[in-house]
Amino acid sequence: MRFNLTKEFLEQVHSAVQSNDFEWIDKNVLELHFVDIAEILDELPNEDAKAIYFRMDEETQADVLMELEEEVRDRFLKSLSKKEIAEQLENLDSDDAADILYEYDDTEIQEVISHMEDDDAADDIVDLLNYDEDTAGGLMQKEFLHAEIDWTVEQCLIEIREQAKEVDKVYTIYVVDSLNKLVGVLSLKELFFSEPNHKIRDLYQSKNIISVKVTDDQDEVMRLFDKYGLVSIPVLDYQSKLVGRITIDDVVDIIREEADRDFQLATGISEKVEDNASIFRITKARLPWLIVGMLGGTLGAKVISSFEGSISHVPALAFFIPMITAMGGNVGVQSSAIVVQSLAKGNQFKSIFAKLGKEVLVGLFNGLICSSLIFGIASIFGTIDLGIVVSASLFVVIVFAAVMGTLIPLILDKYDIDPALATGPFITTLNDVLGLFIYFSIGMLMYA
Amino acid sequence: MRFNLTKEFLEQVHSAVQSNDFEWIDKNVLELHFVDIAEILDELPNEDAKAIYFRMDEETQADVLMELEEEVRDRFLKSLSKKEIAEQLENLDSDDAADILYEYDDTEIQEVISHMEDDDAADDIVDLLNYDEDTAGGLMQKEFLHAEIDWTVEQCLIEIREQAKEVDKVYTIYVVDSLNKLVGVLSLKELFFSEPNHKIRDLYQSKNIISVKVTDDQDEVMRLFDKYGLVSIPVLDYQSKLVGRITIDDVVDIIREEADRDFQLATGISEKVEDNASIFRITKARLPWLIVGMLGGTLGAKVISSFEGSISHVPALAFFIPMITAMGGNVGVQSSAIVVQSLAKGNQFKSIFAKLGKEVLVGLFNGLICSSLIFGIASIFGTIDLGIVVSASLFVVIVFAAVMGTLIPLILDKYDIDPALATGPFITTLNDVLGLFIYFSIGMLMYA
Repeated sequence: MRFNLTKEFLEQVHSAVQSNDFEWIDKNVLELHFVDIAEILDELPNEDAKAIYFRMDEETQADVLMELEEEVRDRFLKSLSKKEIAEQLENLDSDDAADILYEYDDTEIQEVISHMEDDDAADDIVDLLNYDEDTAGGLMQKEFLHAEIDWTVEQCLIEIREQAKEVDKVYTIYVVDSLNKLVGVLSLKELFFSEPNHKIRDLYQSKNIISVKVTDDQDEVMRLFDKYGLVSIPVLDYQSKLVGRITIDDVVDIIREEADRDFQLATGISEKVEDNASIFRITKARLPWLIVGMLGGTLGAKVISSFEGSISHVPALAFFIPMITAMGGNVGVQSSAIVVQSLAKGNQFKSIFAKLGKEVLVGLFNGLICSSLIFGIASIFGTIDLGIVVSASLFVVIVFAAVMGTLIPLILDKYDIDPALATGPFITTLNDVLGLFIYFSIGMLMYA
Repeated sequence: MRFNLTKEFLEQVHSAVQSNDFEWIDKNVLELHFVDIAEILDELPNEDAKAIYFRMDEETQADVLMELEEEVRDRFLKSLSKKEIAEQLENLDSDDAADILYEYDDTEIQEVISHMEDDDAADDIVDLLNYDEDTAGGLMQKEFLHAEIDWTVEQCLIEIREQAKEVDKVYTIYVVDSLNKLVGVLSLKELFFSEPNHKIRDLYQSKNIISVKVTDDQDEVMRLFDKYGLVSIPVLDYQSKLVGRITIDDVVDIIREEADRDFQLATGISEKVEDNASIFRITKARLPWLIVGMLGGTLGAKVISSFEGSISHVPALAFFIPMITAMGGNVGVQSSAIVVQSLAKGNQFKSIFAKLGKEVLVGLFNGLICSSLIFGIASIFGTIDLGIVVSASLFVVIVFAAVMGTLIPLILDKYDIDPALATGPFITTLNDVLGLFIYFSIGMLMYA
């Protein structure tokens, strides 16, 4: 049976805590998967959550703590003393502990660290805090398995057994030389099924090892995980010494975040907002693009007003304004979306001109089909003249929008601006103004 | 040094193959990571690719084959005899082999299978072909490590050593009872560091094991990997017997595909198209939404034409048509995007009414801010009267669009239609028509 959180269950938990019925809590809450426990604590008042949290064993505490929603975790940790926080951090993987401390200021960090009893753990965390949050150094953890190239299998087994106490997810053993430089990898499988007196030197694999430097950007880390289908990657410092590893679970989180961000930019939301963010924050995240849209609309009004004469003369021209702007926007967003996706995949092999040529051709086809259709519709609606104006301008607008939609993200990317910016209201607004100008210019030519 | 494919290198490879300089190929191509080899073969003529492919050892062949782009792989396999295909399939994991055979018709499958020499492998593949491609059964592979609960550690080590020859990525050992029912899991770490005479029964972990049934939908599989941070999941049949496992690399592919699809729907592309698809296919993928947009535009034209009198009377009304439609579209897409994302995360805890209430509040705020701004702009542009009409209708349109943007994806989801459909041109078009109606109605009231 899979756990499914209901309002009724939450109320039961709450009243059990209130009435000190911890037997019920132990049986019905603490026996659950830590992810489910975190889901419950997310929804409880802080005092309830605290009472339940401190009944768990250390390992579960660490797992639950990292599963809590960020806001809930911050609130929870704020209600603890610095000494209690230090105790919690000691149970965590170094990267998770560093992630939490990133939020604190220097004096707070010093105070927390001073309360930590495990000096090695404290050193690891302090070290990680030196790296930028979105570099490989900021993503990596200090816990990993490593073997020296001159060890025998027997010696390695003893060492690894000791190391494994600190390492949660075991994927690969990194092989280093006497200077701690990465020289290759060894799978657990190979190690365990080899003769005890064999040397690591004769077992490890040194070909095509994929690694990153501490300063590499997280986008590069993601690209490598994606391209080479990795589950973990070793991280090296400037001297090629092995200093950490990044595992796939962290990368999956980033993949999701980036996909969410692209989606939000494409749909006109300027920053990441959680589902449960305050109304003020949501409003703030959406307003920038709405104002861009409004300024675009004002520019559009300016364009139309300069053709006021044509509208007075042929009011039917106004009928097709929404169609022209909508189609320009749609085509522009389609083209830019494809470019953004292929840029995100690091697909730079084809030249800009090849992409542009293709988009123009697609635009020509779609333009031909759409404008033939609209010629019929507009002619029935108004006159043949109107049909000619609307269909001719629709054709030009579609081709133009395809070109703009392709070029703008490519240009943004060239200047290191996130090309996903181009998929949203930006391209729509630009194409609106351009489309209106084309439409009324053709209209004026026709009716002049 | 990381490999980076260039046009020059491709030409060198091509001429090396043409001049039978396989020494050069061995040194410069076959020494690369299999992902990079696949990237090269993707770009070569089929004859070149074949010549290089058959110089690789079996393991690299299997890795490279699964890394090729789908179209290239299909073309490559089509150029082989059924017997050669059978030989290639025998090197693959069962799920990969099944994925390839899904594309063939029944007689072709039979012919290929009849050429396979390894009967067990053939049975596994035939078995997998029985499952729907987007269920857990269709995703799983038959290769996994399992231990019986009554084995001793010593016995288990011998068995696992044998099993591990077939299993590429080793994460967890699944523990089954004598009827092959899943009872728990055991990590390699625990197995290897336990006394030889201990029993698996005393070592394995049976609490909170997450598994799926063969018939579970791939969305459910993804949700579980995501929620519980899994790297692999066991797959059970109707009788809870262990029949396969799904690993995170397959799931990462699906996460990406789904994110791409949501993004494409939001940007008005009706089906998945590869970057290198033909112009005809790209046109086809985009045309449906363009036609929807055109029909919406026609409907918009109909609405405006019924207010032709107002436009003749006050041509300035036409100036703000693009602003009203653009803002309705933008707000609608923003609201629907948030709902779609929270539905995708399985976040159903909050009721529809809570979501709707929040969106309406955000709409009210944004509406107030935007319409105050536009009141100023439109008043300067035209008259105070125009300012009142434009700002009042913008306010109503923004609130309406927020409501529609929230409700439509929720309704689609209720009827099991992909809610992401609502984020694209659909919501924009609907809001265009609605917005125009509101705008001109208010305009008519003002100027009546």
